[in-house]
Amino acid sequence: MITCLAGGVGAARFLQGLVKFVSEEEVTIIGNTGDDIELYGLNISPDLDIIIYTLAGLADEEKGWGLKGDTFNCLNMLKLYGHETWFNLGDRDIATHIYRTQLLKRGFPLSDVTKRLREKLSLKEEILPMTNDRFETRIRTPNGSIHFQEYLVKRQAQDDVLGVHFEGADKAKPAPGVIDSILKARTVVVCPSNPIVSIGTILSIRGVREALKETQANVAAISPIVGGSPVKGPADKLMRGLGKEVSAFAVARLYQDFIDSFVIDQIDQAEKEKIEGLGLHVVVTDSIMKSLDDKIRLAKAALQSVESL
Amino acid sequence: MITCLAGGVGAARFLQGLVKFVSEEEVTIIGNTGDDIELYGLNISPDLDIIIYTLAGLADEEKGWGLKGDTFNCLNMLKLYGHETWFNLGDRDIATHIYRTQLLKRGFPLSDVTKRLREKLSLKEEILPMTNDRFETRIRTPNGSIHFQEYLVKRQAQDDVLGVHFEGADKAKPAPGVIDSILKARTVVVCPSNPIVSIGTILSIRGVREALKETQANVAAISPIVGGSPVKGPADKLMRGLGKEVSAFAVARLYQDFIDSFVIDQIDQAEKEKIEGLGLHVVVTDSIMKSLDDKIRLAKAALQSVESL
Repeated sequence: MITCLAGGVGAARFLQGLVKFVSEEEVTIIGNTGDDIELYGLNISPDLDIIIYTLAGLADEEKGWGLKGDTFNCLNMLKLYGHETWFNLGDRDIATHIYRTQLLKRGFPLSDVTKRLREKLSLKEEILPMTNDRFETRIRTPNGSIHFQEYLVKRQAQDDVLGVHFEGADKAKPAPGVIDSILKARTVVVCPSNPIVSIGTILSIRGVREALKETQANVAAISPIVGGSPVKGPADKLMRGLGKEVSAFAVARLYQDFIDSFVIDQIDQAEKEKIEGLGLHVVVTDSIMKSLDDKIRLAKAALQSVESL
Repeated sequence: MITCLAGGVGAARFLQGLVKFVSEEEVTIIGNTGDDIELYGLNISPDLDIIIYTLAGLADEEKGWGLKGDTFNCLNMLKLYGHETWFNLGDRDIATHIYRTQLLKRGFPLSDVTKRLREKLSLKEEILPMTNDRFETRIRTPNGSIHFQEYLVKRQAQDDVLGVHFEGADKAKPAPGVIDSILKARTVVVCPSNPIVSIGTILSIRGVREALKETQANVAAISPIVGGSPVKGPADKLMRGLGKEVSAFAVARLYQDFIDSFVIDQIDQAEKEKIEGLGLHVVVTDSIMKSLDDKIRLAKAALQSVESL
């Protein structure tokens, strides 16, 4: 069994490669829900969705969000009704949110909803939200605290980051299966996702970090920082905002207490020794995922990085 | 001021004609909400919507429902998730229901929501739901009692009608403005709509029928039955199910206690005397509305039918 801690697009790409040579049934994905947001009365789980859509072959990989060939007629009409429409929701995407909202309203936990969604799309991977409880990533800016999506999408990550706050983290319990899937895994992979708002959120859930330290599984992580900047997203701004250096090494330090190996890009070769100094096995490879081959190669490198240990 | 009792498509067409020669601000429309249904967690008001869409020039007049040029991507995705999709909801149409649902959930009454919707679409007509309270038209069939939409759309009006039941009618209060708009009108028009499930519902609301009898306004009605069958919809099956003859005369009898004039189609000329026998002024005209000219002519005939009184 391979258990993966996952954010959004970067993780989805990595997982696409992984399931090309590992049986889907062997893969458990623990997804970030800190980005979840309610808009227009609909419960949206962007990270879980992009993983589901990507693994189902439905994602718009060119745009990097949403569903391939989706239309935006509902959103345009909502705009006509005076709604803010900074969060792009395609018509088919909205069906996912309608479906989820309805089930949540009927009392099903998010993990059940997620299971149903991936089953409807014939996915055999186990996909677990990190928690079924309310959890909201908020960014402290000079203009006050705002929802992560508002920071990222509405305000295009333009605000200075003064801090990151995980609302609900003190009370959120791991969703059923989360801790077990870490403890019982053969290998755990921390996907190349934002170390603060994608992986950091998962690590903040009670018992997760402890399970990662305790598990007999080897734990590999892939650096989402390549050449001093994130492949995608605002990780640099968030890391800098928290007073951290933006480098593969800085990410390795965030994970060093529970990972065994760390995969970095060729361009960061110079950081290899420094990271090894943290007591980690370091693998250097080409970590930019464009083609499916790239994704497979990176996933293989991650697994191989711990197999030799 | 002209106050119109309205069902769905037939009424919408009539109103389209009316506002071509009467100022929109002078028109108040009391809409049927007995067809309202919650699907996928969304509150849908089909009759109010088709009137709003039609008056805003957005309705798909060829299909007779929904919005012109709408797509059905959300619904198709909901189908993939295993939802029943017998009720056709276009992507732009869904925006209306998302907007309405959200406002209702926030505690706004349906009349406020309706006002906002028509204002967003720049409509100057006053559009009032008959009630803000729960009201559901149910059809008794040999297989049990079913929601009117289930009878009409899902089961295509195939079931024998044993009876019609207005759930909530005993408690439903008229929405603000409904009674006043009848009492203070110069003219009241009962649009060519289903006399049982469109107009009958409105008449069942406490105080409406009394206001129609009491008002100083002249009241005109247009027969929705032409040549012994409804222009659109299942009025014949419902009337027969309730033991009524299917004719213009039978409709006139349903309204005779509160209308002054009755507009029938040329094809029903033979019924004129019989209807006059009910004490009504009868106007015979071509009542089939295809072109805009047809709609204007019928609306003029309806108004003229009471102006001479």
